[in-house]
Amino acid sequence: MVGAGQLARMTSQAAISLGVGFRVLAGSATDSAAQVCAGTVTGDYTALPDLVAFAAACDVVTFDHEHVPAPHLAALEQAGRQVRPGAAALRYTQDKLAMRDRLRALGVPCPRYAPVTSVAEVTELAAGWGWPVVLKAVSGGYDGRGVWVCQTPAEAAAVLAHPVGVFAEEHVGFDAELAALVARSPHRQAAAYPVVQTIQRDGVCHEVLAPAPGLAAGPAIEAERIALELTAELGVTGLLAVEFFLTRDGLLVNELAMRPHNSGHWTIEGARTSQFEQHLRAVLDLPLGDPRAAVPCVAMANVFGAGGSSNGDPDIYARYTHVMAADPGIKVHLYGKSVRPGRKIGHVTALGDDMPSVRARAVRAAGYLATGEE
Amino acid sequence: MVGAGQLARMTSQAAISLGVGFRVLAGSATDSAAQVCAGTVTGDYTALPDLVAFAAACDVVTFDHEHVPAPHLAALEQAGRQVRPGAAALRYTQDKLAMRDRLRALGVPCPRYAPVTSVAEVTELAAGWGWPVVLKAVSGGYDGRGVWVCQTPAEAAAVLAHPVGVFAEEHVGFDAELAALVARSPHRQAAAYPVVQTIQRDGVCHEVLAPAPGLAAGPAIEAERIALELTAELGVTGLLAVEFFLTRDGLLVNELAMRPHNSGHWTIEGARTSQFEQHLRAVLDLPLGDPRAAVPCVAMANVFGAGGSSNGDPDIYARYTHVMAADPGIKVHLYGKSVRPGRKIGHVTALGDDMPSVRARAVRAAGYLATGEE
Repeated sequence: MVGAGQLARMTSQAAISLGVGFRVLAGSATDSAAQVCAGTVTGDYTALPDLVAFAAACDVVTFDHEHVPAPHLAALEQAGRQVRPGAAALRYTQDKLAMRDRLRALGVPCPRYAPVTSVAEVTELAAGWGWPVVLKAVSGGYDGRGVWVCQTPAEAAAVLAHPVGVFAEEHVGFDAELAALVARSPHRQAAAYPVVQTIQRDGVCHEVLAPAPGLAAGPAIEAERIALELTAELGVTGLLAVEFFLTRDGLLVNELAMRPHNSGHWTIEGARTSQFEQHLRAVLDLPLGDPRAAVPCVAMANVFGAGGSSNGDPDIYARYTHVMAADPGIKVHLYGKSVRPGRKIGHVTALGDDMPSVRARAVRAAGYLATGEE
Repeated sequence: MVGAGQLARMTSQAAISLGVGFRVLAGSATDSAAQVCAGTVTGDYTALPDLVAFAAACDVVTFDHEHVPAPHLAALEQAGRQVRPGAAALRYTQDKLAMRDRLRALGVPCPRYAPVTSVAEVTELAAGWGWPVVLKAVSGGYDGRGVWVCQTPAEAAAVLAHPVGVFAEEHVGFDAELAALVARSPHRQAAAYPVVQTIQRDGVCHEVLAPAPGLAAGPAIEAERIALELTAELGVTGLLAVEFFLTRDGLLVNELAMRPHNSGHWTIEGARTSQFEQHLRAVLDLPLGDPRAAVPCVAMANVFGAGGSSNGDPDIYARYTHVMAADPGIKVHLYGKSVRPGRKIGHVTALGDDMPSVRARAVRAAGYLATGEE
């Protein structure tokens, strides 16, 4: 697995049970996955020689992020390496405008969008769509962000001032955000997890509720259908996470990811097969595991670093003890990351029969871990 | 954790979620846990300098086997290291005669036993107990065994011919073998898992059924009570597994282990907190996790190496695919061990609502993995 963040860390955990050899290409020996995985190789995923050397020691190469340069992916494939998902599929996670165009061509419902290069174009689109207008980087972004909700032409101008290709998208009013997670193997076996609700703030996922509470069968089935269709149409091997807006008029696709996804962390304890095991089974062309939920209600809440300084937060392990004592059923996952304000450093999962209480347990535990306050 | 077998391997997996640093002292870099754990140190657990150096880099030292020499354990404690469980408790896993004497003093029911040094003594005991008589090594054993069921004086003589201290025990006729698994922390918090049935052949565990099917409340509660009493009386920190014979006259304690135990592998998917996470929480003095079962019925079956040669069994991964395809709900755990006839190389777990079908699934999967035959 190229990349050694928390997704690789949790994938390495799943690889232990399967008994398959697992290596990560880590930028640093202190990366989240590098701390735990015996098969860590340090190297630079933007350097083709590092990728080539890493891939030479692997039967299959997969990824914990979508930032490997597309020409390098193509070069690995041309050298006969098994790259899963492949370069042709990953293109749609690296070029969001290409993704939008492909989805439109497939008739998959998306927000209205258009490429833009000037404030005048944005203002013209806003005349039809209304403000705010969402600007999205075609690839990458700046200052760690790739999506900007612009309320005014001045805000759009500030984004366009950066040398980053963007396109404009209507700002969708939605009732809920949903995510559908599916897996597909080279043998074309597919498996779909229950559709979940994600609770996002400022574009960052804070909670995941599985299954999505109160979701009607119609949009649930439609979300799974779209995700399964996209795995086939885009030729995905491994996991595909599709994020949706649920609007009065139906579902709109927001984002795609072709890897384990934050919206699937609940599956570690909450489903018969975790997304990390499923991704490995899919990319290794093993038969897929049962994706069904193991319990009626699961809530996952992310833990974000708090504290006023950038010097870390040494109290986190003391708070850990409090959280475990308060709720013996809570499952805590810490990623071995130094604590910085706003940084995702872990997650907690609660399971049970009643979503409001399960959700409250997860939110309370994550909040206490972050801040030390009830 | 001193030792790098499959117990350390699965404990390292649990440590990843907890976000605690985890090291293993491995005899070889190819040991089961050493293959996966970034914190592997190679060394000899029978050499005090290796143990001292390993312990110096750890806040707490624990074990995946009971073979560290007792004087070394005492030396680590005298040097101020946190050894959990401690030397005083571990004595009862290293000296089975001391364990029997202590249990008798506590009034805990055990099979009748007596130290023996001659065939005449064994024959005299057999006159009261009847044949067969069980001979058990006080510590260790030979040829990889420490228990011998002797049908005749000649068989007893063959055991006694070895320079191994033994004691004699009556051969108990039982209805079932049970195991109770409990955890205790330095804070004296304790947690008990549901009592399970173990299915053993030739003294080797083949299957575990959780909870023990058809077990009446009386012996179930009594088994938990004895296990909890022993953790307190023996001063155990971490897990204690107590193996019982269930006889017409009640429970008799057979064996003790103070570490994760084969009879608890079902907890990885089948309980709210796996035994491996629980052991870590206990030895780190973190609050213990919920030990309750997550589903009504769980069956675990060990996978043993088959094949006629000692050169390994390269077909095991092909059979793996078949097993996963036949049963998407089966959970396979392979330990990264080379396959030799009779060697425990992994286990499988099945979960569900009906024990006969759950058990059949686990047995079929384990059997197919071992032999390639339905």
